[in-house]
Amino acid sequence: MTTVKSFAAMEAAAPFQEYEYDLPELAPEQVDIKVESCGICHSDLSMLNNDWEMSIYPFVGGHEVIGVVEAVGESVPNLQAGDRVGLGWNSRSCMHCDQCVSGNQNLCAEAEGTITHQHGGFADRVRCHWGWALPLPDSLDSATSGPLLCGGITVFNPMVQHNLSPTSRVGVVGIGGLGHMALMFLKAWGCEVTAFSRSRSKEESARGFGAHEYVATEEDGALESVAGKFDLIINTTNVELPWDAYINALAPQGVLHTVGAAPKVEAAVFPMIIGQKSLSSSPLGSIATTRTMLEFCARHQIAPKTETFPMSDINEAFEKLRSSPAHRIVLLND
Amino acid sequence: MTTVKSFAAMEAAAPFQEYEYDLPELAPEQVDIKVESCGICHSDLSMLNNDWEMSIYPFVGGHEVIGVVEAVGESVPNLQAGDRVGLGWNSRSCMHCDQCVSGNQNLCAEAEGTITHQHGGFADRVRCHWGWALPLPDSLDSATSGPLLCGGITVFNPMVQHNLSPTSRVGVVGIGGLGHMALMFLKAWGCEVTAFSRSRSKEESARGFGAHEYVATEEDGALESVAGKFDLIINTTNVELPWDAYINALAPQGVLHTVGAAPKVEAAVFPMIIGQKSLSSSPLGSIATTRTMLEFCARHQIAPKTETFPMSDINEAFEKLRSSPAHRIVLLND
Repeated sequence: MTTVKSFAAMEAAAPFQEYEYDLPELAPEQVDIKVESCGICHSDLSMLNNDWEMSIYPFVGGHEVIGVVEAVGESVPNLQAGDRVGLGWNSRSCMHCDQCVSGNQNLCAEAEGTITHQHGGFADRVRCHWGWALPLPDSLDSATSGPLLCGGITVFNPMVQHNLSPTSRVGVVGIGGLGHMALMFLKAWGCEVTAFSRSRSKEESARGFGAHEYVATEEDGALESVAGKFDLIINTTNVELPWDAYINALAPQGVLHTVGAAPKVEAAVFPMIIGQKSLSSSPLGSIATTRTMLEFCARHQIAPKTETFPMSDINEAFEKLRSSPAHRIVLLND
Repeated sequence: MTTVKSFAAMEAAAPFQEYEYDLPELAPEQVDIKVESCGICHSDLSMLNNDWEMSIYPFVGGHEVIGVVEAVGESVPNLQAGDRVGLGWNSRSCMHCDQCVSGNQNLCAEAEGTITHQHGGFADRVRCHWGWALPLPDSLDSATSGPLLCGGITVFNPMVQHNLSPTSRVGVVGIGGLGHMALMFLKAWGCEVTAFSRSRSKEESARGFGAHEYVATEEDGALESVAGKFDLIINTTNVELPWDAYINALAPQGVLHTVGAAPKVEAAVFPMIIGQKSLSSSPLGSIATTRTMLEFCARHQIAPKTETFPMSDINEAFEKLRSSPAHRIVLLND
């Protein structure tokens, strides 16, 4: 029996408090991870508040975990105690359906989430299937790499999915937690990178993360000025966009790719037909794509911009998340 | 000076009447085609009626031409008098912009249409740029192949664009002029083919064209019964679809591809994200894709289902098009 010391909310929107629970015997395919750090994602806040009506209380959030493998089940093929790993949104996939055996474990219909089907990483330890405990390259920092496992892979996945070329012109809509990582990835990928944000307030930081160009969309004629330009636009926001204006900003064969859960997309078909344009979408990445991203980050020295709090100050950290557009907040185990 | 005997409408929605006009001297890159047959496409009717507010009168329609090269300009590199060719929607592209030199002449911003920028194929001869006069394989029939050059390439293009595999499950929405050709292509491509139509009235013909399965969408639970099934659905209709229900019918990574000019698409984003699904679109194909289609049709003995009229009965043929869902009507020069 393993006892876990965590921080849990006992009901929707309640403050986190210390909460101990026991884990059953480790299954053959599972590993236990001793948590070193855990990022806070906006979806942790949504789950805390039960915005998606799927939260279970006591709720232990946290799905951007960096830690060290503490125990491995008897059939774990690739990890041993002491290995440093990351754990993101998914904690388990069935590993035998058509999607899993095709390498698309992120699309497994039976996939389970680190904070939706079990208790998450705001704790001293967390459990998962070996496949989703992703070995961390040595050069990646434990204190800053957690956000790669959720926000990072979310914006890296479309680059792999669309077989993006370094010769491409790419736009990123929304320069927050996901967007700033997208800019860093795309700069390292070799693309021409444009940041889209409402005002000029994020221009300096966006250029610092790698944007070559900046479009402040609230300025008159801003979107019209880049008509026909982009091979790919990655939308990280979850609000209604002026979809037709963004489709107009695509080059022929261009793709407007949404990873932010806006309620709906609504677009005129004729301009899409004429330009052979698409609207696409994706969730987090597969196991292999996540491994590839971690290697890419190590090679290009990519680290999310983070602000850290001791995990015991979790409520203060959530207050910061609610009030301020920090790029990414990470809790460090005390 | 070349005199053309054609059939023209002198104003919107007017009947066609005999109309002679003179062509200027042949430009170096142009060819004149002696028309053997010309299909009637629904867009000829739209242009006749000035539905798109771009028609010029006298209006000579016809953009599904089969004929024989009669004269070639001095810089035409690949054709000579006597060659049998087809001519479709496009009659010219600039051949030097980025799209043209990439092989995407169908996406050229300066492309001109056979019935939008000049007089079309309801005539004894028609003129075009050599690139769009596509050599016809010997085994293709002059009387039935015209519709391949417009409706055919419209549904063949997405199969090439999406690098479709014979292992895929593919749906076709709308079993009319375009849809019946899509079924034939997909059967020959080796895919599992499903036809979608409102009622059961087209089931027998759809199965005859190659559909393995048939979904009558007005039946209760019909679309729900194929949830999660399709890698690609090609929508040939130009009406509002129950988009979310079709997206739900896609397998993970599936694509809902629209070639019919519905006013708009409107879809919930979250199911697209979860399943990594896309909405895509395309116009007619490039020169190379059209050549590939014609070879494919020759190899697989694919011919559109047509009903023929003498060209002098053009008004009777249009009456038939307006009133009856014939698969494709072709005019044969008297």
